[in-house]
Amino acid sequence: MPETTGMDMSMMQPCVEACSAASMAATMCADADSGEGMGRCASLCMSTADMAMTMMRMMLRPAGYDMTAMTAMMTACMAMGEACAAECGRHAEMSEHCRICASACTAMVDACRTAMSMMPSA
Amino acid sequence: MPETTGMDMSMMQPCVEACSAASMAATMCADADSGEGMGRCASLCMSTADMAMTMMRMMLRPAGYDMTAMTAMMTACMAMGEACAAECGRHAEMSEHCRICASACTAMVDACRTAMSMMPSA
Amino acid sequence: MPETTGMDMSMMQPCVEACSAASMAATMCADADSGEGMGRCASLCMSTADMAMTMMRMMLRPAGYDMTAMTAMMTACMAMGEACAAECGRHAEMSEHCRICASACTAMVDACRTAMSMMPSA
Amino acid sequence: MPETTGMDMSMMQPCVEACSAASMAATMCADADSGEGMGRCASLCMSTADMAMTMMRMMLRPAGYDMTAMTAMMTACMAMGEACAAECGRHAEMSEHCRICASACTAMVDACRTAMSMMPSA
Repeated sequence: MPETTGMDMSMMQPCVEACSAASMAATMCADADSGEGMGRCASLCMSTADMAMTMMRMMLRPAGYDMTAMTAMMTACMAMGEACAAECGRHAEMSEHCRICASACTAMVDACRTAMSMMPSA
Repeated sequence: MPETTGMDMSMMQPCVEACSAASMAATMCADADSGEGMGRCASLCMSTADMAMTMMRMMLRPAGYDMTAMTAMMTACMAMGEACAAECGRHAEMSEHCRICASACTAMVDACRTAMSMMPSA
Repeated sequence: MPETTGMDMSMMQPCVEACSAASMAATMCADADSGEGMGRCASLCMSTADMAMTMMRMMLRPAGYDMTAMTAMMTACMAMGEACAAECGRHAEMSEHCRICASACTAMVDACRTAMSMMPSA
Repeated sequence: MPETTGMDMSMMQPCVEACSAASMAATMCADADSGEGMGRCASLCMSTADMAMTMMRMMLRPAGYDMTAMTAMMTACMAMGEACAAECGRHAEMSEHCRICASACTAMVDACRTAMSMMPSA
């Protein structure tokens, strides 16, 4: 299958790790935000956690690699990560969990961009 | 928030239900495929199940509605649903679970398209 | 496999639906709670949403039915549903989303109890 | 909240990491199993991946720590991990992904046992 698609899982490894880290950071940030009444931040973090987890799992399933779906999901993951990083970034100075989450989201966006640049065009 | 984004959850309801149905059908299809050695079909179904679930949850979280991320995720969900429906469609005549999954995926793609058409342009 | 385990998926259907409904209600409740500063309620709802979804998927995968794991997960799902229903129940009069979530959690607990009573003892 | 429950997140850290590793290993194993017609193994791995992910997230949400639900979920996670390790263990000699998954599941079971031993009795 890697031959067919031009993608292989080892190429995806840094992106897998960045998605895993972002998913964990966003899960923790959502939990902390909620008690502080930061509803929009919590909501974005919950969706980022789910999207990063789904993105990660897609990369861990080479039997079903599909260029079009993978590219579209990477694009979505970058859009979500940017929205979450922007919101968390606004609270980063006063809130350690937001600072960590914004940083993990930005790293995920960068890792997705790098992974996409190594994928053959659809 | 609906005022800001031009989206509201009730508008999303048919898409929520289509994603829920596709996520369930794909979960069952992946389980059945595996015992039949249909590795690519199972793999696509597993990722479709995760993506449909994540898409559904995003729509159920209006506090974090973000036009750009929502549009990108809908696009990804449509690409995944089309890839899964195409693969399951090939086995639909001999496999009832593939027929059901292909149909649920196509319905999800249609529901996403309709939902996107009602969203204001990003 | 149903012959081996004494469980079949149709027997699980009401529980599948109750878990799906609880997972959606808890996802919406967590989103709304966060903006209201109800941190403990949001946190319990997020975990209930994940647990109900995982429970539902287990039931949709008959190829891997395992009495011991299924019984233990049903027990966990009931404990989580009871904790979430208790917390949401405290805000049910002033908060519609908590009233709906508490009701969906209680229905899931009842459906798990019924499903367990129909399963052969491990 | 840690004061109330006698649990804190740092105490859970090794278990978080073991659940994350088991979730990834089981996701990869399910993908590979499917193409080999190992339906029961794939099915158990899919449910293990979901359960490990849900367990991990619960530990990352201290605002909602609840002794009874946490203990029940750890018990369920151990039962699932044991069932998955037993099945994967049978194919470990001929299948590298099963060997890795069995090992990650066993490590998760051990980490859950250790975490439970440090939690105050419910």
